Amino acid sequence: MSLLEEFKSGDLRALARIITRVENRGEGYQGILAELYARSGRALRVGITGPPGAGKSTLVFRLAQLLSSRRKKVGIIAVDPTSPFTGGALLGDRIRMQELSLDPRIFIRSMATRGSTGGLAEATRDTTIVMEAFGKEIILIETVGVGQVELDIARACDTVVVVFMPESGDAVQAMKAGLMEIADVYCLNKADREGAERLIVELQSVLGLRQKKTSWEYPIVQTQAIHNKGTEELWQTIDQHREYRQKEAPRDRRREIRIADDLMMVVRGKVDRRLEKALQGTERFGRAVRDIQGKKTNPYAAADALLEDISRLLAE
Amino acid sequence: MSLLEEFKSGDLRALARIITRVENRGEGYQGILAELYARSGRALRVGITGPPGAGKSTLVFRLAQLLSSRRKKVGIIAVDPTSPFTGGALLGDRIRMQELSLDPRIFIRSMATRGSTGGLAEATRDTTIVMEAFGKEIILIETVGVGQVELDIARACDTVVVVFMPESGDAVQAMKAGLMEIADVYCLNKADREGAERLIVELQSVLGLRQKKTSWEYPIVQTQAIHNKGTEELWQTIDQHREYRQKEAPRDRRREIRIADDLMMVVRGKVDRRLEKALQGTERFGRAVRDIQGKKTNPYAAADALLEDISRLLAE
Repeated sequence: MSLLEEFKSGDLRALARIITRVENRGEGYQGILAELYARSGRALRVGITGPPGAGKSTLVFRLAQLLSSRRKKVGIIAVDPTSPFTGGALLGDRIRMQELSLDPRIFIRSMATRGSTGGLAEATRDTTIVMEAFGKEIILIETVGVGQVELDIARACDTVVVVFMPESGDAVQAMKAGLMEIADVYCLNKADREGAERLIVELQSVLGLRQKKTSWEYPIVQTQAIHNKGTEELWQTIDQHREYRQKEAPRDRRREIRIADDLMMVVRGKVDRRLEKALQGTERFGRAVRDIQGKKTNPYAAADALLEDISRLLAE
Repeated sequence: MSLLEEFKSGDLRALARIITRVENRGEGYQGILAELYARSGRALRVGITGPPGAGKSTLVFRLAQLLSSRRKKVGIIAVDPTSPFTGGALLGDRIRMQELSLDPRIFIRSMATRGSTGGLAEATRDTTIVMEAFGKEIILIETVGVGQVELDIARACDTVVVVFMPESGDAVQAMKAGLMEIADVYCLNKADREGAERLIVELQSVLGLRQKKTSWEYPIVQTQAIHNKGTEELWQTIDQHREYRQKEAPRDRRREIRIADDLMMVVRGKVDRRLEKALQGTERFGRAVRDIQGKKTNPYAAADALLEDISRLLAE
């Protein structure tokens, strides 16, 4: 059986191998993605984001457990470098991770940070596609909600949950700078700790402004993920948001927007790799660098000249 | 007087206006950057990174104050969305910021997060160039050290200081995933708090492995930025790292690497903008999206077809 046939028969090792191949741009990856793309786009993509230490991973663990108990097939993608899913976890985290990884309905994948800027969002998108084609119905994507790439990933989700905790008064500030606006659902984790009420009041005052612009009532769900409290309510809220979205925008229109985003990302990725191949380490590029160093030109003029030269290469 | 002449005469408003113009890709921005580039590359670029809440901004404030007292010209760039420099600060922060902004030797600029992925690193790089050309001798760049773009920015610095605090046991884990390796100097801020000693022991065990690979002895500086303790020692350590770098790699070679990075970034930025112009909202692109939706093609094949089409446009 070929790798793709094994994949289609539901073989977990084939799933893992295909993700690795696609991530590394290994042999035939493009054909694989092309074939799997048509089977993708049906899962619900839920982004779980927030500052480090808010308990996002534990929440993801609880949600995955709940969904599995309802016979849902779940994919988990951890983009957050502080997540226990990405390794280096505390003991409690490790035990929870192990429990999840033994559940046949749950598949976990960690994304490493990468050298090239665009790579991480692209790898996350591709992994989502592969998991969806494998039959995963819900994809939970954990990111740490502060970096630009991470915000880009969150924007590609159907529903974004922003998680924070009472201690992180700073977190609310952080959220004001970008995170606040991408949240569909707010989750106050560790809600039994001191400062929870104050933070909710703060949040509500900010939410008041948002609610005027939409008919969706931004909820604040309180959880204690470590004690598995509030998980069910959180999931119900995510589900309500799904229903809201379906009423607001027809499925076709949303699919069209997602395809446009996907296409643009693929084009960018291809161009980026071709650029690297056409330039890095080449005599042409080295000469340009020396000319800039010798003040004969500057990076802006040199870039124009290089682009004129290599446009033909980009088409190949 | 033209804007550039005002800039060259040391006019602070001209500096601010030029940064804004360059950031927004306003009229003539490329000519401005081309002219300023030759005057750049002489400042020391210090990255200050670490998890939210570690006190990076207060440290930047203290360093800037110290350097100004020694008659150094300082530029501050805040890329961190949780930084008080980017607005939404606590009262104490606001008072400190105001103090800095009244100091004629210090110039502060905040970077907003952007829609496009590459934009943030590019804007930070361009702002650094403009500040250097204005005569700033030391550029302090504050990022929150978890996202991919932020790691890219830190890598473009001469010296990277990673800041953490005793409470953030999680932070050390975070650091293991990428942050640890980019640090030249470790700074334990809020060093009077409980848990400081334990964290230092943890750090030293990780550092033991790093130190075998280099002759630079990774220092751990303890500070209490809020009480202005340890600032001088931190600066001395940064300065020692500068001396170490000068011995290890000749200035010309480092300049060459930086120019190559700059050039590649300019090329990428240009290509990205041309791609957007050539594709977004065009009939050609819309047709491709509809064909994917109708399962006549997939994003990977469609991207190849589009690239063949538009390569000519990229050269223009």
